Amino acid sequence: MPRTYIEQLRTPGQIVEDVYQVASKDFRTTKKGAYFISARLRDRTGELRAIMWDATEALFAAIPQEGYALVKGRVGEYGGELQIVIEAMRPARENEVTAADFLPVGPGDPEQDLARLKAILDEIERPALKALVETLWADKELIADLKRAPAAEKLHHAYLGGLLEHTLSVAEAAVLLSRHYPKLDRDILLVGVLWHDLGKTRELAYEKALGYTDPGRLVGHLVQGVRMLDEKIAAVRDAGADFPEELADVLRHMILAHHGQYAFGSPKLPMTAEAFTLHHLDNLDAKLHAFFRDVGRDADPARRWTSWNRMFEERLYKGFEEVEPDETADA
Amino acid sequence: MPRTYIEQLRTPGQIVEDVYQVASKDFRTTKKGAYFISARLRDRTGELRAIMWDATEALFAAIPQEGYALVKGRVGEYGGELQIVIEAMRPARENEVTAADFLPVGPGDPEQDLARLKAILDEIERPALKALVETLWADKELIADLKRAPAAEKLHHAYLGGLLEHTLSVAEAAVLLSRHYPKLDRDILLVGVLWHDLGKTRELAYEKALGYTDPGRLVGHLVQGVRMLDEKIAAVRDAGADFPEELADVLRHMILAHHGQYAFGSPKLPMTAEAFTLHHLDNLDAKLHAFFRDVGRDADPARRWTSWNRMFEERLYKGFEEVEPDETADA
Amino acid sequence: MPRTYIEQLRTPGQIVEDVYQVASKDFRTTKKGAYFISARLRDRTGELRAIMWDATEALFAAIPQEGYALVKGRVGEYGGELQIVIEAMRPARENEVTAADFLPVGPGDPEQDLARLKAILDEIERPALKALVETLWADKELIADLKRAPAAEKLHHAYLGGLLEHTLSVAEAAVLLSRHYPKLDRDILLVGVLWHDLGKTRELAYEKALGYTDPGRLVGHLVQGVRMLDEKIAAVRDAGADFPEELADVLRHMILAHHGQYAFGSPKLPMTAEAFTLHHLDNLDAKLHAFFRDVGRDADPARRWTSWNRMFEERLYKGFEEVEPDETADA
Amino acid sequence: MPRTYIEQLRTPGQIVEDVYQVASKDFRTTKKGAYFISARLRDRTGELRAIMWDATEALFAAIPQEGYALVKGRVGEYGGELQIVIEAMRPARENEVTAADFLPVGPGDPEQDLARLKAILDEIERPALKALVETLWADKELIADLKRAPAAEKLHHAYLGGLLEHTLSVAEAAVLLSRHYPKLDRDILLVGVLWHDLGKTRELAYEKALGYTDPGRLVGHLVQGVRMLDEKIAAVRDAGADFPEELADVLRHMILAHHGQYAFGSPKLPMTAEAFTLHHLDNLDAKLHAFFRDVGRDADPARRWTSWNRMFEERLYKGFEEVEPDETADA
Amino acid sequence: MPRTYIEQLRTPGQIVEDVYQVASKDFRTTKKGAYFISARLRDRTGELRAIMWDATEALFAAIPQEGYALVKGRVGEYGGELQIVIEAMRPARENEVTAADFLPVGPGDPEQDLARLKAILDEIERPALKALVETLWADKELIADLKRAPAAEKLHHAYLGGLLEHTLSVAEAAVLLSRHYPKLDRDILLVGVLWHDLGKTRELAYEKALGYTDPGRLVGHLVQGVRMLDEKIAAVRDAGADFPEELADVLRHMILAHHGQYAFGSPKLPMTAEAFTLHHLDNLDAKLHAFFRDVGRDADPARRWTSWNRMFEERLYKGFEEVEPDETADA
Amino acid sequence: MPRTYIEQLRTPGQIVEDVYQVASKDFRTTKKGAYFISARLRDRTGELRAIMWDATEALFAAIPQEGYALVKGRVGEYGGELQIVIEAMRPARENEVTAADFLPVGPGDPEQDLARLKAILDEIERPALKALVETLWADKELIADLKRAPAAEKLHHAYLGGLLEHTLSVAEAAVLLSRHYPKLDRDILLVGVLWHDLGKTRELAYEKALGYTDPGRLVGHLVQGVRMLDEKIAAVRDAGADFPEELADVLRHMILAHHGQYAFGSPKLPMTAEAFTLHHLDNLDAKLHAFFRDVGRDADPARRWTSWNRMFEERLYKGFEEVEPDETADA
Repeated sequence: MPRTYIEQLRTPGQIVEDVYQVASKDFRTTKKGAYFISARLRDRTGELRAIMWDATEALFAAIPQEGYALVKGRVGEYGGELQIVIEAMRPARENEVTAADFLPVGPGDPEQDLARLKAILDEIERPALKALVETLWADKELIADLKRAPAAEKLHHAYLGGLLEHTLSVAEAAVLLSRHYPKLDRDILLVGVLWHDLGKTRELAYEKALGYTDPGRLVGHLVQGVRMLDEKIAAVRDAGADFPEELADVLRHMILAHHGQYAFGSPKLPMTAEAFTLHHLDNLDAKLHAFFRDVGRDADPARRWTSWNRMFEERLYKGFEEVEPDETADA
Repeated sequence: MPRTYIEQLRTPGQIVEDVYQVASKDFRTTKKGAYFISARLRDRTGELRAIMWDATEALFAAIPQEGYALVKGRVGEYGGELQIVIEAMRPARENEVTAADFLPVGPGDPEQDLARLKAILDEIERPALKALVETLWADKELIADLKRAPAAEKLHHAYLGGLLEHTLSVAEAAVLLSRHYPKLDRDILLVGVLWHDLGKTRELAYEKALGYTDPGRLVGHLVQGVRMLDEKIAAVRDAGADFPEELADVLRHMILAHHGQYAFGSPKLPMTAEAFTLHHLDNLDAKLHAFFRDVGRDADPARRWTSWNRMFEERLYKGFEEVEPDETADA
Repeated sequence: MPRTYIEQLRTPGQIVEDVYQVASKDFRTTKKGAYFISARLRDRTGELRAIMWDATEALFAAIPQEGYALVKGRVGEYGGELQIVIEAMRPARENEVTAADFLPVGPGDPEQDLARLKAILDEIERPALKALVETLWADKELIADLKRAPAAEKLHHAYLGGLLEHTLSVAEAAVLLSRHYPKLDRDILLVGVLWHDLGKTRELAYEKALGYTDPGRLVGHLVQGVRMLDEKIAAVRDAGADFPEELADVLRHMILAHHGQYAFGSPKLPMTAEAFTLHHLDNLDAKLHAFFRDVGRDADPARRWTSWNRMFEERLYKGFEEVEPDETADA
Repeated sequence: MPRTYIEQLRTPGQIVEDVYQVASKDFRTTKKGAYFISARLRDRTGELRAIMWDATEALFAAIPQEGYALVKGRVGEYGGELQIVIEAMRPARENEVTAADFLPVGPGDPEQDLARLKAILDEIERPALKALVETLWADKELIADLKRAPAAEKLHHAYLGGLLEHTLSVAEAAVLLSRHYPKLDRDILLVGVLWHDLGKTRELAYEKALGYTDPGRLVGHLVQGVRMLDEKIAAVRDAGADFPEELADVLRHMILAHHGQYAFGSPKLPMTAEAFTLHHLDNLDAKLHAFFRDVGRDADPARRWTSWNRMFEERLYKGFEEVEPDETADA
Repeated sequence: MPRTYIEQLRTPGQIVEDVYQVASKDFRTTKKGAYFISARLRDRTGELRAIMWDATEALFAAIPQEGYALVKGRVGEYGGELQIVIEAMRPARENEVTAADFLPVGPGDPEQDLARLKAILDEIERPALKALVETLWADKELIADLKRAPAAEKLHHAYLGGLLEHTLSVAEAAVLLSRHYPKLDRDILLVGVLWHDLGKTRELAYEKALGYTDPGRLVGHLVQGVRMLDEKIAAVRDAGADFPEELADVLRHMILAHHGQYAFGSPKLPMTAEAFTLHHLDNLDAKLHAFFRDVGRDADPARRWTSWNRMFEERLYKGFEEVEPDETADA
Repeated sequence: MPRTYIEQLRTPGQIVEDVYQVASKDFRTTKKGAYFISARLRDRTGELRAIMWDATEALFAAIPQEGYALVKGRVGEYGGELQIVIEAMRPARENEVTAADFLPVGPGDPEQDLARLKAILDEIERPALKALVETLWADKELIADLKRAPAAEKLHHAYLGGLLEHTLSVAEAAVLLSRHYPKLDRDILLVGVLWHDLGKTRELAYEKALGYTDPGRLVGHLVQGVRMLDEKIAAVRDAGADFPEELADVLRHMILAHHGQYAFGSPKLPMTAEAFTLHHLDNLDAKLHAFFRDVGRDADPARRWTSWNRMFEERLYKGFEEVEPDETADA
């Protein structure tokens, strides 16, 4: 039976019987002293309020915060909003939980994205860099992480597969610009693009929910990326190939400098043309993704402006062609 | 007779007879009381020390600072460096001075650059924007300025034709990226690129030497660009065509926001996807131009690093492949 | 029948029958399943909670958010606070709504303020500036806007007539200081004062509620002010009078530089004595207005300090003479 | 009868009969129109919700916000949390309120802390500084304040006795480091440590609750400290002893510069070795105190990270040895 | 015999016989081994190069750097510039040196300035403030310093009498604005103006040359001003008059906050209306003084712009009416 | 024969015959056309002007800039300063150059410093950290670098042995403070201290002169330190010992965060108590070293203040006890 996602619960009276994650829960009493559970249930498509009358404290305790529950009930309505009225609920067994149902997933196909990224990197000519990239492709576990990791917890491409999608998009832009600016060292630029956010596979957590790992918080993805580069260069050399230390330093520099400013956590400012180019293409790709996402998500289609946006430190303009004017947008 | 440029004066004894600009001049006496003129002469290829023995104060006064002189003499040497030993000198007549000899000129051909820029803008589809661009091309005087103006006094593309070269380069990059990011409004992006620095034709001076005009200092090229846009939109409307005011505001916004931050003199932060894209492509083009220029100009080919660079707030790395390592670069 | 303003609703039991704006509305159910509307009603004097029992969804839908409703009911009390208990309600007809009832209005008389401002500007001596000011007075539509516009959405003089009140106040201060500092060019200073915030007539919305217009957000009042100056200078010249371009640039500069710093959205720093003076007088007038307003509004007359003030980035001191000491103000 | 502190109220049904401070209070009605008081009661050990059914407005008015009430009732439970169900309540008489019950108190013994601090200062050798310190000890009122004052309202050592505890801790660290760095002038460093936060005895309020005094907000503890230094130096000189003005300036400088940066309210940057040392030791002591307090207080012992910490502008890491890993800490 | 000032030495051959300060001195040898002294001599009107042939080391040593010498010689010329050719020189005796000849002096008359300032302060009404001001006038030594001190070493009013001139100018502006803003407490504002820079009498040195004192560098004029206020308030109280401590705190606050920002060394941000007003009037007066001085001093009357100005972080615009346009100002 | 160092050349007439480094050189002509070499010679104790009459261009070319020359001549005097009058000079042979003569050397004994550092680290108790430190001591090459490297090119401890001296000093301070703050994890703090600047052995160049290496500029000592930590942890694990990855992350964090702020190149802010402590002790040690060095080096013993100091962004106060007051220090 196909899963009923939160976003599919739209009609009062609709039957609910599926596994949901418990985003939050409260044990309360009515005025008359009866106990009930008020909770919020979610999956990767959204979140909904739920209520269970005549609950027991034992049941309440049995379902951990952020745990999973098999829920039976119906869609109800309260104060004009939908809610789930739970009739029965128990902790879900491990084999009943499909992790993928609870993590946001990107729109793309990681296998295809990876194939396109590989095709781009195949154009690299310097043998040392060729060997480095091959060594990366050969690491099955890391490639599995690369296909699965998000590019951020919230800022941009914040879903499974987002890291690969962002990396591919920057790589494609880099191919275009390295044609336009032939003085750029295309090989170095492309390996820099490939590696710039690779440390996010270790900085971010994406098994059960998006977040940060301990090493991610303590060390960060820039230095994690350098460490992963060091591992692969060692592997290249162990395999008997030559990898100039100067070339390694140039790649390390690109990874460390790609945030462009000290204030954004780069311990080095860009000092090569390829490092500047990577910084701008990465930044632009992240911003355009977030821009179109936030404009698309904005609650009120009748307004030309989003609400204040923390990443951009401004409201965003949705355009005038499809939307009526906002004469008094803040009123 | 072809001109002898400063950069062609290389051999002691070489005859000098041409017009040069007087970059600076001093009237001095020798220990024994004789008067002499010490000066620096320049044209667009460089600058050289010059000395004229047995000068008179009248001659000294006759040649204004930053004026032009017809100089006769020979190349000499002093303290290991070349200098011009002036035998005779008089103020140059106006018809003897070819302004182009005294202004730095870019490597490109403005006519060709303009043709390529026009070809790109020809792809614009919205009638209002088409009409706007046509009105711009029709302004012969402004187009003459656009072909001649530098993009900056010093920072990047700081030579005649530099503004057009930079605008074309950003436009070409914008064409590439608008294919890669199809959600971008290509028409709006391209007109934004075309107009973003157009105000520099009025902000900068480039008749006799590169510098700033009074309105440039008081008003700046961002607001000058908006004023020029207003003039052309008025012309479009006067010609009977429709130009929506909302579209005008979006273009004004791109011009005003293209420096990306308040601290760089933008009175507005970018609020549209096209404004962000313009900001990044403009910035990257300027930086790459300056990077390759400064790396190319660096005095010491035996070093891997340039000296500290004010624009980048760092030394720049020239690469390791052609240059020996700098073990003690600051020693 | 005179209107009953929100601030006049003070006694439980008082009859209510007037048009109010619906600031927010919610459709809810009681525990027992009955529907009710909870809303907030407002006019330019304040806002009050309102409740309507036994409501229907059709009625709820009929009254748009920020729309106007003719409300009948009585003043009630809930949890120690007054509320309106609505007995009947319907959308107000257009001719029942007096816009002025719903916008904050300043304490002054715009006609008088305008007369005083004109009297000050009458003292200007330079013919070009005289002509410019006359052209402004002659634009009936713009003068109507000037009399009506606020000086800000929230920061200072945030009510109808506020822009004129602020402009007049700065002009009066400028007259005083130009006597004290006779080296100041009084004519130029006064025209700068007159024009510095004129762009707010286009940046701000003040038909139905205070807010920003689209061109206000995209372009801002500084550049709008320059555009309006350009329009009027063109009119002066069209009328055959002379207006030196250098003088125009000096005025443009004052408008663009009057925020004093890049960080506050000025694309140019002040470079003339009059630009500095305008910046300081404008800033001081805005701050003093906000200071006395916020000190006056502060909820608790028993305290010597306001709560933390976002504009001033501090608490404000109300003075010690009328108020008891705050020994433990933050407890 | 010993007091029952808030933190001792743990069991539903437990009898409550003691004086508590009213942190906040609301007068509400039930759906059926009955009045009740909802309040929060506190003492120095914590705060708890309380409810009194069938209350009258007169009783509500009789007990001032932040006043004290003698409360009788029982511990109840509401929505899974404890609350006090008040059966009777009246304003407490002045002699029933023990101020110390309502202020947070530090873990140390001020008498012992003072003795240790005196022992350290006894080592000072310069007669002028010896005389200065003796004059301080002799001021009974000030010493009483020093033993009682907190070091901050919230940031660190925010409890009675905290100022002395912090001062002693920095003094002990200074003794250690002045051995390690023998070029430091130990006498001057120690008097600087003693005096650096002495102005907090006047800047902060700590009679009834922690907060700021009016002079504290208007003048601050740095300048208050200099004023207190001036008073004591005058006393030393009045007693016939010599106190070089240069030495006084060096001490004033240390007090004024100890925040280390203009942005933190120091009107002078450190210019002596002792001023730098004081700045670093003071800062480190405050941060370590806050670090261990905030890590200790963190609600969830199962997590390795605290929530975002405003003082440190980061989350704090509690360590990996006692705590399970946080794979998805933000989920 | 009236003094011959440096600025009066204009003609080669003119006889020199007067006392000058030795700004710098060098003992050199000619190619042929003869010794000579090269020096720069100055008084308060300027500085000139001087040369003394056939000097001895003993003579060289006898005249200390920054000491005074009685010089006999003639005006000569070297390399187009005037210089003094010294024929004889000896250290000046103390009674031959008139300090006033060597310190820059303001254009005003301190006695008149003081009288005008007193007249303004005479309008104060509150008895406590009246008494405070009287106590200040009664301190002959301090008033002597006030009449003599500069307002800054370099920034503005940097000459003897400058502090008083600046204080008077701000006071006059404050009188005007307190009429315009009647909510301002005129008494408090005027005493704040009087006292805001009074600490400069101790922060700056102005006996022999303008500079900083040790207490000036270590403590600064803000805190020195508070200390001087404390001394005078104590004197008022000692004389039996009442001076409310709250009023003292408000004055201290104005002094400490008058730089307006932490970054400019204010340990407190302005929190009263009078403190804001003082900050803006002080800042404007200093800037206008520096603006007109720097525009007036600019070397090249043919240019419309000064060179880059460190205080204003920009070039200053001298105006277009008297000056030709600068088309290429930086060339 | 013992070397004659530059600082030993003090008497005109003294014979010079030794190897010096050529800091700079110029080939010049006298008025009469004779050639001479003007140069500056240096060793690690200082630098002196030198002149060689009757030089040939061949000799000039034979001695490279920053190369070494065997110089014969005598001490002379010119314009009151000593100089070397070179009689003969030839390029030095490689075996004539003792590198140590040309690099600044610290005051300490690296062997003793290392022994003291080892003794401190011997106290570590956790087996994993013990094994890590042992692995470091076993790396002879790295320990040789540690004993030789400076702590900075210029800022502090800028001489051979400086890195070890600084590391030891911070370690000793850390031992003291970990007694004072027993909640600190002493083992972790000490390993953090040991490793915090270890990357400087690779970031800095110190073979021939102090400077930066290419990897130093591109990657920096923070990330180099993490890479060296990774190498040693791998060695520990290869040797069969256990090293928890969490512990490794905590150490990596301390290295990366020890600059304390993003603006100073730390990609992570301190998040552990030990990371804060390391940051403050490191910073204080560097500042105290620089403070006493710069105060000691200051040219003029008669002044109480150094000239403006770039590192401290202020003048430093040398103290009043040995020095006369500076009344007009800037005059």
